[in-house]
Amino acid sequence: MTVILHDLCGADPALRFSPYCWRVRLALAHKGVAHEARPWRFTDKAAIADAGTDKVPVLRDGGRALHESWRILEHLEDTRPEAPTLFGGEGGRALARFVNAWSDAVTAPAIAAMVVSDIPALLAPDDAAYFVRTREARFGRPLAEVTAGREGAVEAFRRDLHPLRMILRERPWLSGPAAGAADYIAFGPLQWARCVSAFPLLTPDDPVHAWRGRLLDAFDGLARRAPARDPT
Amino acid sequence: MTVILHDLCGADPALRFSPYCWRVRLALAHKGVAHEARPWRFTDKAAIADAGTDKVPVLRDGGRALHESWRILEHLEDTRPEAPTLFGGEGGRALARFVNAWSDAVTAPAIAAMVVSDIPALLAPDDAAYFVRTREARFGRPLAEVTAGREGAVEAFRRDLHPLRMILRERPWLSGPAAGAADYIAFGPLQWARCVSAFPLLTPDDPVHAWRGRLLDAFDGLARRAPARDPT
Repeated sequence: MTVILHDLCGADPALRFSPYCWRVRLALAHKGVAHEARPWRFTDKAAIADAGTDKVPVLRDGGRALHESWRILEHLEDTRPEAPTLFGGEGGRALARFVNAWSDAVTAPAIAAMVVSDIPALLAPDDAAYFVRTREARFGRPLAEVTAGREGAVEAFRRDLHPLRMILRERPWLSGPAAGAADYIAFGPLQWARCVSAFPLLTPDDPVHAWRGRLLDAFDGLARRAPARDPT
Repeated sequence: MTVILHDLCGADPALRFSPYCWRVRLALAHKGVAHEARPWRFTDKAAIADAGTDKVPVLRDGGRALHESWRILEHLEDTRPEAPTLFGGEGGRALARFVNAWSDAVTAPAIAAMVVSDIPALLAPDDAAYFVRTREARFGRPLAEVTAGREGAVEAFRRDLHPLRMILRERPWLSGPAAGAADYIAFGPLQWARCVSAFPLLTPDDPVHAWRGRLLDAFDGLARRAPARDPT
């Protein structure tokens, strides 16, 4: 039975930009799981309703339909113990969850506030209307206003990356000597930004930039080959 | 040979307040290492010069003198493999280093900016002069000015704790089902603040407050029994 990932796409089905789907795509590659990354749009609620959610990623694997990227990563680790580990043991699993919380609470909202207005133009018409309506409700103002100050906001964002930068000055991967779940988790929002926006989040001299480049190159350039507005 | 920790103290030798020494004290308790926590003052440079540093913690263990709290934690894990693990494996060790970076880059500087002016009054005269001189050079202004806005700054600090809070809503310890190095690392700066300042950093309804309470109670109340300006 083919493993299927429902993967958020734009008007162009080749444009894949969800930060949470990117976490799963790299974890699937890490575990060597052959799969179909099937394009899904925000308004395709019916296609994933049986998974008990209205958001992707949804992974169909051996008769199960799982949602939430963190749960999917745990599922991949637990069902593929013979493949390279994502977590490096129980202590690593516990603290990868902290990296997930840090990425979701610090990195992802800061990036959203810098790129969200670039997204509607990339979406199919129904999706664009849905996206603008739901995101303007979340931010409480027009999306163009949200991102208006991004040239200034990016400095604070780069400072917020400092804990990650401190680690990457010591070693190539957040997870240790090899890339793992924590790397894919932290990378997801950065890849999201690259895919939807030409606004430069990182400076080329930043160790975070070099690490992002290593993740773009991983798995035969899986993430680098994907269509992106920021090709760097 | 007795294990000795050189442990920062105030004018009152019973006042122990270094965030980095607290990380080590809890790790020593976790590993069940009998030791002497010997009072040390900022100006006692000669007492630790052989360790190649002018700052504590310094741990003397079996003829070795180690400095830096992170290196000491790794040493304890590596030399006491039969005792309860601090890291929960190599993945946990790698990401405990990220927690260390987050605590040092985000939590500790924010706390310093809220409590640093409370410290000189607690120090012996030579130490107070040293402390004021070095910290005012670091901050570039009088310590009273650094902490003047703390009633406002504490709100941002509490928001910065959100990744930790997200984890503590799910489980009792950052390290997983049992406390470990990541908990002691994140706790260190909070215990520092309690020991030197009555300024309340946490609200009683915060899961971080409850977790701090569990760490204060751990090891027969090792951290709670220590003299502190904020008894909560």
